[in-house]
This record gives sequence, structure tokens and C-alpha cells, in this order.
Amino acid sequence: METARKKRWQDEQTVKQLVARLNRIEGQVRGIKRMIEEDAYCDDVLNQISSIQSALNGVAKLLLEKHMKSCVKDQLLDGDEQVIDEVLKTIFKMIR
Amino acid sequence: METARKKRWQDEQTVKQLVARLNRIEGQVRGIKRMIEEDAYCDDVLNQISSIQSALNGVAKLLLEKHMKSCVKDQLLDGDEQVIDEVLKTIFKMIR
Amino acid sequence: METARKKRWQDEQTVKQLVARLNRIEGQVRGIKRMIEEDAYCDDVLNQISSIQSALNGVAKLLLEKHMKSCVKDQLLDGDEQVIDEVLKTIFKMIR
Amino acid sequence: METARKKRWQDEQTVKQLVARLNRIEGQVRGIKRMIEEDAYCDDVLNQISSIQSALNGVAKLLLEKHMKSCVKDQLLDGDEQVIDEVLKTIFKMIR
Repeated sequence: METARKKRWQDEQTVKQLVARLNRIEGQVRGIKRMIEEDAYCDDVLNQISSIQSALNGVAKLLLEKHMKSCVKDQLLDGDEQVIDEVLKTIFKMIR
Repeated sequence: METARKKRWQDEQTVKQLVARLNRIEGQVRGIKRMIEEDAYCDDVLNQISSIQSALNGVAKLLLEKHMKSCVKDQLLDGDEQVIDEVLKTIFKMIR
Repeated sequence: METARKKRWQDEQTVKQLVARLNRIEGQVRGIKRMIEEDAYCDDVLNQISSIQSALNGVAKLLLEKHMKSCVKDQLLDGDEQVIDEVLKTIFKMIR
Repeated sequence: METARKKRWQDEQTVKQLVARLNRIEGQVRGIKRMIEEDAYCDDVLNQISSIQSALNGVAKLLLEKHMKSCVKDQLLDGDEQVIDEVLKTIFKMIR
């Protein structure tokens, strides 16, 4: 994807929101490491992992929304339909 | 879940394996933060998140296996069937 | 979604493909009913359900592709951005 | 899995419940076929598929519960630990 075609989606408020969420997720991952090193009960660790998965899902959904409403829309309006195949490939990974 | 009933599942090799994987995941989360701060193309960021989700899935599956083959089995053989409801609740979150 | 705004996406080949897949899925659902009525081993039934889930995922992905490349694209080019929120809501359910 | 080892989990009430749910799912699949043949708006069809996926998830969870509380538990108490690997393989498909 040449960078030139990608308009900056710089939206300070979203960047801040995403970085804050990712900071929390990073902390949760470290927390799980500690739980495992301290031989915590597996069930508790597994539930922590599920909560990280949900948090990551939230980040992905916010990003997908921003992406669809900026890059995907702009490239479509520029007549570049290839962006649909690109975003579908990404969405299909998210659906698994 | 009183700790007394939970046998230590201390298996050095698995702990090392899990901690190594979680270190990588932690690094990936930091990598995504940088991508977002540097206004990377959303599609690339979304694909990174999918790869973290798969890596976390791998950790969860390894943990669930260890849990089923140690704590769940031991508590069942001790006559404590409540552990089935507990692990089902956790599995259902993983299935979503 | 007023029908007027929705262009017919009538593409005979895709309709045939989807209907054939759904016929197979319908048959699989009936198959599972029989397995349960005949007291089949649960593990075998659960694996059949997973295969139906994957088959349904395949149908959904094909439909989403057709939808993005026809209705979503056309409405965006008509200046109607509301279609993005609509399709995102649907995709988020697929991601769960 | 030799049938001899699998105790009948014949529980009339659960069988009735599962068959009723599967009848509804079968009807929903037929409904989607009709929608597609009648050129319904894709978004509506996609949402129907998501609701079938959730209904199937519900059937799978009920079955897994019954399985864990009968066959898996009985075989473990009989000293047959192979059942854990078998059910994990099935659960991992459900987690995808």
C-alpha cells in the first residue's frame, strides 16, 4: 500500500484513546506473566486472557471504524476499488 | 476457589514457554502503540492485532490443556465436581 | 433501509452458490438432530457443529464481499455514508 | 472412540431441548435461502446468519456441558485420561 495514497487519519482524540487502551492491555499482559510465575490458579489466568481478548477486540473495532470512514471511503471515492479486497482480507482474519 | 484445594501445577518448562510467549505479545502490543503514534496505515495495525489475538489464543489453549490435565482432573478424582462448572464458565468465555 | 435505495445485487452465479451451500448446511443440521436422537457420542456431535459454524462463516464471508462490492460501494459513491455504520454494526456481530 | 466405553447420556429433557433448538435453526437456514432467492438486502441476511451462529453456539455449549458432566467425568473416574485430549481437540475447534 504506497504511503502516498494513504491520507493521514491523524485524529488526536482517537490516537490518545487507542494508546491509553493499549497501555492498559500491556499492563494486563505483564500481570498475566506475574500470575504464571507466581503459580496462580490457571482458571484465574484464563479469565484474564479472555478479558485481554475483549479489550483487543474493542481496539480493533475502533480502528476498523476509523479506517472505513477515512482511508476506505477516500480511496473508493478516488475510484480505487482495490481497497475493498484489502479491508475484506483483514476483516476475515478478525472473524476467524 | 480456596488456594488449599489447588495443587501447584509448577512445571518449569511450561512456565518458561508461557512467559516467553507473553514477552513476545507484550512487545507486539508496544509495537502497535508505536504504529498508531506514528500514524501507520490502519490495515497494517489491524493485522498486527489479529496476530496478537492468535498468539493469545495459543497461550490460552496451552494453559487450558495444563489446567484440564492437572487441577480439573485432580479435583474430579477427589470427588469435587464443582470444578466442571468452573472450567465450563471459563471455556464459554473463550468461545464467546 | 428503504428498498428503493438498495440496488438488486442479483448475480445468478452467486445466488446458486449460496443456495447450494445452504442446502448442505440444512442437511447437516438435520444430521445433527438425528445423531442426538440416536444418542450419538457428544464429541462427534460437537465436531459436526463446528463444521457447520465454519460452513456458515464461509457463506457470511461470500455475502459480505458481494455486499461491500455492490450496495456499500454504490451507496458511498451516491454520497450516503450512513451505510458504513450499518455494515460496521453487522461486521462487529460477526467478530463477536 | 469404541461405543462400548460411552455410557448412554440419554436425558430425555436435554434431547427434547436440543432437538427443538435445532428445528428452529433448520427453519432459520431455510429462511436465509428464501431471503437470498428473493434478493433480500445482504445486511439483513448477514444479521440472520449471525443469529444462527449464536443459536448454534448455545446448542454446542449445552452439549459440551452434558458431555463434560457425563462421558468425560465417567471416563476420567475409570482412569482413562485420553478423554481429556479428545475433548480439548473439540474445544479448540470451538474456540477457533
